[in-house]
Amino acid sequence: MQFTAQQISLLLNGTVEGDALAAVDKLAKIEEATTGALSFLANPKYEPHLYTTNASIVIINNDYVLTEPVKPTLIRVENAYSAFSILLEQYNTIKLNKAGIETPSFIHPSATIGKDVYIGAFAYIGPNVKIGDKSKIYPNTYIADNVEIGDNVTLFAGVKVYFDCVIGNNVIIHSGAVIGSDGFGFAPAADGSYKKVSQIGNVIIADDVEIGANTAIDRATMGSTIISKGAKIDNLVQVAHNVEVGTNTVIAGQAGISGSTKIGSNAVIGGQVGIAGHLTLANGTQISAQTGVNSSIKEEAKQWGGSPYLPYKDYLRAHVNIRRLPDMEKRISELEKIIAELQKANG
Amino acid sequence: MQFTAQQISLLLNGTVEGDALAAVDKLAKIEEATTGALSFLANPKYEPHLYTTNASIVIINNDYVLTEPVKPTLIRVENAYSAFSILLEQYNTIKLNKAGIETPSFIHPSATIGKDVYIGAFAYIGPNVKIGDKSKIYPNTYIADNVEIGDNVTLFAGVKVYFDCVIGNNVIIHSGAVIGSDGFGFAPAADGSYKKVSQIGNVIIADDVEIGANTAIDRATMGSTIISKGAKIDNLVQVAHNVEVGTNTVIAGQAGISGSTKIGSNAVIGGQVGIAGHLTLANGTQISAQTGVNSSIKEEAKQWGGSPYLPYKDYLRAHVNIRRLPDMEKRISELEKIIAELQKANG
Amino acid sequence: MQFTAQQISLLLNGTVEGDALAAVDKLAKIEEATTGALSFLANPKYEPHLYTTNASIVIINNDYVLTEPVKPTLIRVENAYSAFSILLEQYNTIKLNKAGIETPSFIHPSATIGKDVYIGAFAYIGPNVKIGDKSKIYPNTYIADNVEIGDNVTLFAGVKVYFDCVIGNNVIIHSGAVIGSDGFGFAPAADGSYKKVSQIGNVIIADDVEIGANTAIDRATMGSTIISKGAKIDNLVQVAHNVEVGTNTVIAGQAGISGSTKIGSNAVIGGQVGIAGHLTLANGTQISAQTGVNSSIKEEAKQWGGSPYLPYKDYLRAHVNIRRLPDMEKRISELEKIIAELQKANG
Repeated sequence: MQFTAQQISLLLNGTVEGDALAAVDKLAKIEEATTGALSFLANPKYEPHLYTTNASIVIINNDYVLTEPVKPTLIRVENAYSAFSILLEQYNTIKLNKAGIETPSFIHPSATIGKDVYIGAFAYIGPNVKIGDKSKIYPNTYIADNVEIGDNVTLFAGVKVYFDCVIGNNVIIHSGAVIGSDGFGFAPAADGSYKKVSQIGNVIIADDVEIGANTAIDRATMGSTIISKGAKIDNLVQVAHNVEVGTNTVIAGQAGISGSTKIGSNAVIGGQVGIAGHLTLANGTQISAQTGVNSSIKEEAKQWGGSPYLPYKDYLRAHVNIRRLPDMEKRISELEKIIAELQKANG
Repeated sequence: MQFTAQQISLLLNGTVEGDALAAVDKLAKIEEATTGALSFLANPKYEPHLYTTNASIVIINNDYVLTEPVKPTLIRVENAYSAFSILLEQYNTIKLNKAGIETPSFIHPSATIGKDVYIGAFAYIGPNVKIGDKSKIYPNTYIADNVEIGDNVTLFAGVKVYFDCVIGNNVIIHSGAVIGSDGFGFAPAADGSYKKVSQIGNVIIADDVEIGANTAIDRATMGSTIISKGAKIDNLVQVAHNVEVGTNTVIAGQAGISGSTKIGSNAVIGGQVGIAGHLTLANGTQISAQTGVNSSIKEEAKQWGGSPYLPYKDYLRAHVNIRRLPDMEKRISELEKIIAELQKANG
Repeated sequence: MQFTAQQISLLLNGTVEGDALAAVDKLAKIEEATTGALSFLANPKYEPHLYTTNASIVIINNDYVLTEPVKPTLIRVENAYSAFSILLEQYNTIKLNKAGIETPSFIHPSATIGKDVYIGAFAYIGPNVKIGDKSKIYPNTYIADNVEIGDNVTLFAGVKVYFDCVIGNNVIIHSGAVIGSDGFGFAPAADGSYKKVSQIGNVIIADDVEIGANTAIDRATMGSTIISKGAKIDNLVQVAHNVEVGTNTVIAGQAGISGSTKIGSNAVIGGQVGIAGHLTLANGTQISAQTGVNSSIKEEAKQWGGSPYLPYKDYLRAHVNIRRLPDMEKRISELEKIIAELQKANG
């Protein structure tokens, strides 16, 4: 689809400078834009690109003063960054504008499907499942018995949700994520083998959560594994049974949270972080990438690093010294030699 | 489904104290139980909850002596914990009681399907596949040519098994796990590019193995990648080509085992552990989380930690000292200063 | 299928020694081969196995001189290793020789499908998708709107490709891999919640790339996440938005590359490595397993290790010293004691 500067300006309540009929069919960064692209300038760092860009239209702030002539048509608005964000969102809404029920799909007769729902081909909706209005269930997705899904939820292709799990409103789950697989619970027997402990709990995912591709969230042994409102979880993250992730907490790619650990709200967990089981992490805790957390954290809003973990500054200081270890060893040997001589002299 | 205290007591061969018609429809921990829930008390630590719980029925030991009156109906048994475990299992058996062949599914005419098998919609059963009795193949699962699957196996939704792989009896594989993908083998060419080395082996999974969600187990280059009887592998684990995992060995989430490494029996591999290729790890080896193992381990049943790894106690001691490094550096500087003065004085 | 020594010899342009009618139906390593297997001897280390193997046929070099009589039929060729590699490839080509369009599958009427393409059952080919000649789309695979796929591409079962992504020729993607999921981008709001930043870019995968099982490659926020020609990516790897991976670069299992980082060509990234965002790594960079890279690397073709990372040799030396830390601490204490005495004596 093509849009003219005039059409976009109307949408953004802006003012056109230049050819009002200039047309675009894609969005791009100002430094990468080609003919037919719409771009924006907000960060002064990118200002030189305004005079060299191939973009056909650029959105800029009302108060921006040109220092040279420019090729693209300009659309002036109060805030170029947020105007462009609005366009990004609209673009995506159009791109992801799926509707209707494709065939073949499997919808159990006892399932309840809301209004304006998209169900892709080869999606499986099990017995007693409830799906709210405007939700999108992409192809090859599996939703087991009794699962409840709210309004305006997107499950991308190949998501798997085990039985009894609950998903709130406005949740986005990316392809390959698994929700509600069995917790890793086994009782050792006398002969060295393990007996499975049945995992009969579920996973509860609150409103506004986003979960990344191929992430796994295990069901609770009993009770619920809980992902609280607004939490954002990246790709390939492991969330074990009975974990609780607090409101607006962010967990980066490949982090792993062991069983029964509770992470407070507004925490930030870095990539590849490992957190042991049965711990409690205070609100606002920040864990840097690859850190290993092996005990509870009580102080709020502190930063930690290292494996095993330390206060972040101690971790940095200690690791500077690790580099100097060979040198330190030499200095100790030197001191030992001198002292041996001093002792002899004194002796 | 609702069950009364009388019905449950009959099943467990127990004795009812209180209202025999008290009814429950769910299982819960004693500290979290609500009305209508069945719970149990085994660990004395949880004793106070017996007198405050909202559970409708609680299972307790025959020899437990009440110290106050209780609200819930009690069922007395010899061992409350194992009685409750029996109920958990029965609950799960009912929950997972899938049967029959759903449509559409793809079953190649040359495949052999046992008795009482469940095949979910959109499952794909390729040429010459054999599936034993009472196995459950959930929806959207893919089983390629010549795969053999034993009795009483569960492949949850979206499991993928490549051609020629062999799966024993009583195996459970969780959603998204991939069995038999190509090993990561490439021969460097003179121009810096890589030529793929064909991976023609398979994966053999013995009886009683459980494999977690989104775990990947690569096929052998030649021969077999082997997961031995009773091994338990958690979510998002990487098992490379030609690896052998011993009997009853447990591997926690996000651990990675590189090509051709052999892990003995009854080993415990922690979360996010990395093990290099072509190593042998002795029986009973215990590796703590995030450890990096870069050489073979010959002594049995020892514990290790750190990256690169050390005996666990040495690792702990070394890491206490890492914290003290800035202090140690200061002490060395101090000594150097004093000695310089002593030398001058002695001069 | 069975093949005789004579047939194989013809194929390899070799010479038969022994029973020309000896027949095989499988390939095996010389030390593991059973009756009916074809094997080869190239590495002198395995020479003793030639005289004990149960293989029915062994391929050896023309110039190899027998030191004892052998049981198997021999096929002599110029280079036994490359002759065997040819057979491995042919074996695999036969194994993976899928063709035709299975039903049910979902192929949008606006999609363009090349010649000699395999499309498995329950595969989903969305609107405006283009698939080149001789490509294989295995069952349960999902290809979203506008995706372009070249010639001779293999997408194994359950691969998911989001809209607008581009895949070159001769690409292999293993089961469960996700291409084009949203980048992990959120703008913090004043109330502690996060607002999703729309991710409207795509992923471009160049020719001759291989991607492992359950790996996730996120689409760019704007522009493209790029995997360059000949790159090889193992299982369970995380590639974040706007990352660029250079030509012929190899990334081992469970490594993670954060947003906007650019890795040069011919680099080798070890297993479980973590690389922070917005970095540039020079061509030929080698990162050992579990390393954490937190700054750009400008020197080409150097090796690095540790978290945070150091030049590989410094890392090894420092870690030897970590083991000695308790001892170093003792030596410092000893020196302090002696010096205190010396000072007293001198005082």
